[in-house]
Amino acid sequence: MFDRIFDRELSAGASYEMLEHLSTKIGARLSGSPAAAAAVEFTRQRMMNFSDTVWLQPVMVPHWVRGRKESGKIHSKKKGTLDVNVCALGGSVGTGLAGISAEVVEIRNWEELRALGAKVIEGKIVFFNRPMDPTLINTFAAYSGAVDQRANGASEAAKFGAIGVVVRSMGSNLEDYPHTGGMRYAPDVKQIPSVAISTMHAELLSTLLKDEKDLRFFFETHCETLPDAPSYNVIGELRGSEFPNEVIVVSGHLDSWDVGQGAHDDGAGCVQAMEVLRLFKLLDYKPKRTIRAVMYMNEENGLRGGLEYAKQAEAKKEKHTAAIESDRGGFSPRGFSMTTTKPVSEKIKSWKPLFEPYGLTDFDQPGGGADIGPLGAQGVPLIGFLPDSQRYFRYHHTDQDTFDKVDKRELELGAAAMAALVYMIDKYGL
Amino acid sequence: MFDRIFDRELSAGASYEMLEHLSTKIGARLSGSPAAAAAVEFTRQRMMNFSDTVWLQPVMVPHWVRGRKESGKIHSKKKGTLDVNVCALGGSVGTGLAGISAEVVEIRNWEELRALGAKVIEGKIVFFNRPMDPTLINTFAAYSGAVDQRANGASEAAKFGAIGVVVRSMGSNLEDYPHTGGMRYAPDVKQIPSVAISTMHAELLSTLLKDEKDLRFFFETHCETLPDAPSYNVIGELRGSEFPNEVIVVSGHLDSWDVGQGAHDDGAGCVQAMEVLRLFKLLDYKPKRTIRAVMYMNEENGLRGGLEYAKQAEAKKEKHTAAIESDRGGFSPRGFSMTTTKPVSEKIKSWKPLFEPYGLTDFDQPGGGADIGPLGAQGVPLIGFLPDSQRYFRYHHTDQDTFDKVDKRELELGAAAMAALVYMIDKYGL
Repeated sequence: MFDRIFDRELSAGASYEMLEHLSTKIGARLSGSPAAAAAVEFTRQRMMNFSDTVWLQPVMVPHWVRGRKESGKIHSKKKGTLDVNVCALGGSVGTGLAGISAEVVEIRNWEELRALGAKVIEGKIVFFNRPMDPTLINTFAAYSGAVDQRANGASEAAKFGAIGVVVRSMGSNLEDYPHTGGMRYAPDVKQIPSVAISTMHAELLSTLLKDEKDLRFFFETHCETLPDAPSYNVIGELRGSEFPNEVIVVSGHLDSWDVGQGAHDDGAGCVQAMEVLRLFKLLDYKPKRTIRAVMYMNEENGLRGGLEYAKQAEAKKEKHTAAIESDRGGFSPRGFSMTTTKPVSEKIKSWKPLFEPYGLTDFDQPGGGADIGPLGAQGVPLIGFLPDSQRYFRYHHTDQDTFDKVDKRELELGAAAMAALVYMIDKYGL
Repeated sequence: MFDRIFDRELSAGASYEMLEHLSTKIGARLSGSPAAAAAVEFTRQRMMNFSDTVWLQPVMVPHWVRGRKESGKIHSKKKGTLDVNVCALGGSVGTGLAGISAEVVEIRNWEELRALGAKVIEGKIVFFNRPMDPTLINTFAAYSGAVDQRANGASEAAKFGAIGVVVRSMGSNLEDYPHTGGMRYAPDVKQIPSVAISTMHAELLSTLLKDEKDLRFFFETHCETLPDAPSYNVIGELRGSEFPNEVIVVSGHLDSWDVGQGAHDDGAGCVQAMEVLRLFKLLDYKPKRTIRAVMYMNEENGLRGGLEYAKQAEAKKEKHTAAIESDRGGFSPRGFSMTTTKPVSEKIKSWKPLFEPYGLTDFDQPGGGADIGPLGAQGVPLIGFLPDSQRYFRYHHTDQDTFDKVDKRELELGAAAMAALVYMIDKYGL
């Protein structure tokens, strides 16, 4: 069956073509945007071709908009005025038309920030410049070690009277383009605007600051948060023949940031999840359990889709055998991560020899996926698809996350690997 | 030590920068070309910075030149004249200014060719159209299953009176550009010109032929083989402190085809091999054995460098502990292949747990590398670096094999993995 799945996907897969449409015809699809609505309708229609039923699960989502293009500048007495490519962080307030301009305090960690305190920070722009650690082999570990700056930098800096925040992009390489991503304001602090700059410009700014502590940074952003908007999780289902009330979820998230095309994050995961249903249909495999491909809405800035799905599952007392998510890009498969009980994870690990011929050897990491996380509280085994991580954080949340960065065979191998795992769980239970 | 090697390479590696120079400043460097000479001098100079000694090992190499750009056309009575992007195969004779034009006989395998025989083949162009098998997970296995058409197609077709050969490109995907590569003439048959066409155009031609058996194919090529030219293997060495007469070779090949930039094939392998010496120097590691980084010349169309190196090693009675080659692109590491005795391969496999945290898990395949192959006859353990194979045959031997297709971290991980293996062999012997 593994051979049949992989052979079919590699010789007649539709995942790449579906991703091409989602990426190049629909493109970036931030929650609440018209493109997100188009993505809902596109995946609904596609899944109709190979599902027993397809339905939309309503969910209200945050609606943040970037507004017109940001601008940024370094004003140096020694070097003159330098343009900087800035990108508002998702959820940030805007600066208004006047922008903000101030001296810059470079910070590497929270201790430094607190040590400087209001005396130094007041009225300044705080520049968070701790890089992702390049020596970590798993780039997601490096991301985890740096992303607190993006998420919490504005609130922490505001506590000491900062007027704005500039964050070094969460990028694994030195590149020219900024990475956006989510940030949140603590409830009781002033909401100050925050932007990302590219890793290259972060290096530049840091270098200039060494020589000229009183240089000024200017930026102008026009983003704002509108009222919540209606949207949907899109769910396609193959009905189980023996245990229709036992559900296996295979999923990705349909929303993306508003830059690039959301190809790796997470168009890849969506089409791979859809492809599992399509492969089963083509191979005439009748699952014993119900297989649901779920395209979650709003992973990037709210997780409303994942929360709503779990809430409904609980209300309807649905039994989920497992939930699988692909949200680490469409790269060459390496394995699966798991967050579940010891007996369940041991059972899945015992299947490793079946996956090794297809290049999947890593079954030892904990993990799942953001959207399926809320199901974990109901005791559902959570499984994350693990592709090779080396290239992900070059593209993640940037205008570089486009369809041409996805390799057809790599994407297909991921879809087939997910189908193979769903097949095993369906056949043998957990 | 593994951590030190990987940390240094990922935070301050030079492999990517060296590859950028080799790919973008020097570019394609077919044996005998001025660019190949530039590549010899560039790698010699670079290795001077971190080797105890660097020398050039003279070798005469074949000197084939493409001449001016080829052209190709399908003349169809139904569809009119269609331009086809053709690419002469390396070693082929040219057509001359008149080109050749004939009806086309499509062939999938040698049995078909023989069954048709001279009665059908005489005076025709034979079109070899067996694709690489997309369902094979290892793309090198798919390549092996198809490349006989490119290598031997002209001679086999000439036996039955064909006047030319068109070969479907050895590409893993449906793409628009042709893949060149080596072919050879059997000693006793007429030398007829042969070209590759893209996988897309192969599909097109095949489709048109179904409907119109007497369509004509035209192509014009201006390639020729000039007298052998002088060139060199470039060898950098760190002298062993305890066993200077025991040599560990770590290598790639310096020549490439004359299209693209030879970035993955095999600029990547060259800079990774050089980087092993550089890392040891930077980390102040004094090897017990002599470590040689060898940039072989002429892997693509003659293997003269590999043959000469082995000949000299034998003549000088050099003892080689092992020979490692990287010639499968600069992709994310997956493992090492080995061709050696059982005890030696078991010893290397016993180190697998040390490599697993860095993503290398595949130690079970036989293999080595074309250039180190001739050392095998002297009983030298042969080891091939195995990166992920999914993307290689999109770029291989095409104008797409350029620096921008190489990921910095993936390249660096390969260099570090090779250094780690050389370290283990140096420390514990084989």
